[in-house]
Amino acid sequence: MTPRARIGVGLVGFGTVGAGVVKIFQTNAALIRRRVGVPVELVRIADVDLKRDRGVEVPAGLLTNDYQAVLSDPAVDIVLELVGGYDIAKKVILGAIAKGKSVVTANKALLAAHGEEIYEAAVRARVDLDFEASVGGGIPVIRALTEGLAGNTILSIYGIINGTSNYILSRMTKEGHSFQDVLGEAQRAGYAEADPTFDVAGIDSAHKLAIMVSLAYGTPVNVKDVYTEGITRIAPLDISYAKEFGYTIKLLGIAKFTNGDIDARVHPTMIPATSPIAQVEGVYNAIQLVGDAVEDIVLYGRGAGSMPTGSAVVSDVIAIARNLLLGATGRVPPASFKQDERRPIRIRPMEQVRSLYYIRFMVLDRPGVLSQIAGVLGNHGISISSVIQQGRKEGQTVPVVIMTHTAGERNVQSALREIDGMPFISEPTTLIRVEGQDE
Amino acid sequence: MTPRARIGVGLVGFGTVGAGVVKIFQTNAALIRRRVGVPVELVRIADVDLKRDRGVEVPAGLLTNDYQAVLSDPAVDIVLELVGGYDIAKKVILGAIAKGKSVVTANKALLAAHGEEIYEAAVRARVDLDFEASVGGGIPVIRALTEGLAGNTILSIYGIINGTSNYILSRMTKEGHSFQDVLGEAQRAGYAEADPTFDVAGIDSAHKLAIMVSLAYGTPVNVKDVYTEGITRIAPLDISYAKEFGYTIKLLGIAKFTNGDIDARVHPTMIPATSPIAQVEGVYNAIQLVGDAVEDIVLYGRGAGSMPTGSAVVSDVIAIARNLLLGATGRVPPASFKQDERRPIRIRPMEQVRSLYYIRFMVLDRPGVLSQIAGVLGNHGISISSVIQQGRKEGQTVPVVIMTHTAGERNVQSALREIDGMPFISEPTTLIRVEGQDE
Repeated sequence: MTPRARIGVGLVGFGTVGAGVVKIFQTNAALIRRRVGVPVELVRIADVDLKRDRGVEVPAGLLTNDYQAVLSDPAVDIVLELVGGYDIAKKVILGAIAKGKSVVTANKALLAAHGEEIYEAAVRARVDLDFEASVGGGIPVIRALTEGLAGNTILSIYGIINGTSNYILSRMTKEGHSFQDVLGEAQRAGYAEADPTFDVAGIDSAHKLAIMVSLAYGTPVNVKDVYTEGITRIAPLDISYAKEFGYTIKLLGIAKFTNGDIDARVHPTMIPATSPIAQVEGVYNAIQLVGDAVEDIVLYGRGAGSMPTGSAVVSDVIAIARNLLLGATGRVPPASFKQDERRPIRIRPMEQVRSLYYIRFMVLDRPGVLSQIAGVLGNHGISISSVIQQGRKEGQTVPVVIMTHTAGERNVQSALREIDGMPFISEPTTLIRVEGQDE
Repeated sequence: MTPRARIGVGLVGFGTVGAGVVKIFQTNAALIRRRVGVPVELVRIADVDLKRDRGVEVPAGLLTNDYQAVLSDPAVDIVLELVGGYDIAKKVILGAIAKGKSVVTANKALLAAHGEEIYEAAVRARVDLDFEASVGGGIPVIRALTEGLAGNTILSIYGIINGTSNYILSRMTKEGHSFQDVLGEAQRAGYAEADPTFDVAGIDSAHKLAIMVSLAYGTPVNVKDVYTEGITRIAPLDISYAKEFGYTIKLLGIAKFTNGDIDARVHPTMIPATSPIAQVEGVYNAIQLVGDAVEDIVLYGRGAGSMPTGSAVVSDVIAIARNLLLGATGRVPPASFKQDERRPIRIRPMEQVRSLYYIRFMVLDRPGVLSQIAGVLGNHGISISSVIQQGRKEGQTVPVVIMTHTAGERNVQSALREIDGMPFISEPTTLIRVEGQDE
């Protein structure tokens, strides 16, 4: 093996994150060289739009609008796929791997959908495939799962992993405004997309959770098995009841390992207001990992943005450069476990999950309503830990709020179906799962 | 290179952390094998005391009271130095390196004092020397500095890195008790040593800060250059004034990179009560890292204990095992920068540091005192942002509390010397540095 004089990096997709990466390579070139031992240089950049101003200067000779030119450039050792989306991104990644190049991607949607095929290709080619930027922006959470906590059986993951949703819920909590109002503001401020579905419906969180579960447990995950519910139905009323009970509502990606199965689900969740992740506000992300040895760890930081996400991409480039210099690519398999040591673990179907529940019924206020509701819950084996029934207004619609002890999702859902058919129910019932101590 | 059938680990020092490591290797053997590809096995354990019950069973044949037997065992690829202290620990590490074995240690005191010599030996022998457990127990903060944030210029580090001090300050804050009272309770509860000096005087924090600075900036650090002040003089009165101003008092290890120099200091610090690390209570540790790309990151978790610290040790073993299997030891140099790329950076002498200050004078309450104090401060170029002078009691001792705008440490110290000589000063003056916005 002749010593390499430098490591060449090719960038495909010169968007927001790409511009951050370019800026970091420019600003911190000396620092990176001092860590790696040789210069790490951007030698080729492909994008369909070569005219737009990204706020960074690059020599015109580096630019091309043909990503194949990046893949086939012999000076390129590492390809950065920052195109996003499914189709071209996948071609870029598999094309780079086929040419024996290592790959860095931030593409959680692609990994959640086609991770298995891509991992397999990378392992077969013995190249590196790293994706620190795919979850939690600049937070080194992928590394925590694959390396820092590698000796732990992960017992649970609680992740605030979508900045847009957390921004909206934080503002709703602080200001008491409705989801729609805050969403509108967030869109005007650039914190939410024109079509915010991916973020507020929990889909983006589900992708990220699927990746984390796959790395934590050495199991392939079909993202379709991840129960996914967004924040669009959370009302200011629920937020103020949560406060009253000592909880904060967050959109969480939750994984729990119990009895050989895994819970993997994304939904709004009430968590104790004093817990570290309840304090995470605005566009910040945080991931709590509980391992059997390390106990509870929280990693907190900016979950998106040009420079933070760029930081994660560059950390992967440095890791791969260090491998390339020693002929050690494939050192940590993309899925963290050896490919032939991965075992399918069952994701527990949502109806088999057990949880504490907050249930808000909107009822016509008349005598006997609470006893009928309590009766149905009791018949389904659901035991009530507290009830709030405030501001009685005979004949009008009022909230009846119930907190349950630990109950089965299936029982809760069938009880709700039964109650929702009763004549005194005047609006759809709101159900929020609660993580806390069952007292 | 013939493929290795297993990785052999030798443990020297079968104490609290050693027992945690043994337990993790026993519980998670299959998991570790699935990640590494071959079994990683404890093949030798040395300790002077082979009789004590550590709560874990090990085959008697593994035990020896001669650490040389571990170093010279050809089945041992990786030596864990968990003896602690300076003398024997250093012999174990250098002895292992001399035999071409990689080393994992949790010994911050040794690394802070003799890190340079040990790093140099490891690099020369091209073995790995990893020490994730030396800072923040199970929190993967060393990896964050050497890998996860490797593309960043680190702008600042704020670390709550001593659990004993944080436990004491948290209880003082919650209960209003004195340092001495809480220390006594902490000692009875096993959260503080019989001789707590190392922890409460900030020495342990200084060791850990020195290690982090060395990794963040690629510079050798002489721990004697780290200004170190403990929490023994913090009074309940200061804690309640801090609250009044919106601050919380924490013992922080602080590093800041400005104008080519580094601040590196350990002292009690007032930080905004709303900042994420202000929420860190009890024996927990947290480290805030600010990088030029990633912006602010916080890593939080248990800073000590058998299993959390054991988790960090095992993560290092796994990293080294992955290197050994590919002949890639030395992949990340112990100091994170290539040994010949390290550059001495000056640690700014404390008297050149600039900060906001909280100063509590205890004065005999008589007319004109405040104007005299303000006059001296003004003469030293120190500008006052607020004053609290409560509960006037003519002729008795009362507190006068002053918050300053940004001022130079040298000026503050000479102003205090001058004021402390004045006849109305009746008790030693308390100075606490403040991190926050200068408004």
